[in-house]
Amino acid sequence: MSDCLFCKIVDGEIPCHKVYEDDLIIAFLDIQPLTRGHTLVIPKEHAPSMDKLSPDSAAALGKALPIVSSAILKSTGAIAYNLVQNNGPEAGMSIAHVHIHIIPRYPDSTHSFLWDYGKIDHKDAKILTESISDAM
Amino acid sequence: MSDCLFCKIVDGEIPCHKVYEDDLIIAFLDIQPLTRGHTLVIPKEHAPSMDKLSPDSAAALGKALPIVSSAILKSTGAIAYNLVQNNGPEAGMSIAHVHIHIIPRYPDSTHSFLWDYGKIDHKDAKILTESISDAM
Repeated sequence: MSDCLFCKIVDGEIPCHKVYEDDLIIAFLDIQPLTRGHTLVIPKEHAPSMDKLSPDSAAALGKALPIVSSAILKSTGAIAYNLVQNNGPEAGMSIAHVHIHIIPRYPDSTHSFLWDYGKIDHKDAKILTESISDAM
Repeated sequence: MSDCLFCKIVDGEIPCHKVYEDDLIIAFLDIQPLTRGHTLVIPKEHAPSMDKLSPDSAAALGKALPIVSSAILKSTGAIAYNLVQNNGPEAGMSIAHVHIHIIPRYPDSTHSFLWDYGKIDHKDAKILTESISDAM
């Protein structure tokens, strides 16, 4: 995609602090980090959301996560970390090219990605389970 | 792990609303959903955090994400969705077995997984990039 910032980073048109690369994936430091070591792991394939990503790129993306996460932990001294991946502008996706945020947490970190727990409606859940399974 | 809730779900000792299964992965509705269709995608392998997950399970986990996400979108009518995966109790991980939350978003949803943008220190970023790359 000629107008996609992340495609330009993949192509080397825009520089980045690259920490990892393989045939299908690159990872680089987020230029607007929440914490030190905040990294983006992205497929080279341009997919606007996770549901549009090809099986090969999705597998490669998954495989890169332990490699990059482990290296971030070792080199930053982070005590924990969150992975966040937003799909669609309504969900806070600002660049429409799949990217997984790895956000290291430190003892003085105050951010949170938690929510109030809901309560499942088991009757509706049975209907929904069948509906989701059927949609595959 | 005999005392792990998710291992018990994998083994069928504890029931779940299962929406997907393959050799290495299962996905089921979160019993404390933030929104309707909130689903957990987990490796059958017991890994306490993403950095500890085996390459095969990580690849399978990645590959399952588009399949499950796409089916959730189709069957719920969600307009967008977030993936969240917490590692370590300090990051809000309540069950120490890797699990990816897929959280559908609806027009009336008010939750947010955003943060205030930081500003990268390019000098430090160069050092950090080298350090992370070296740690792989």
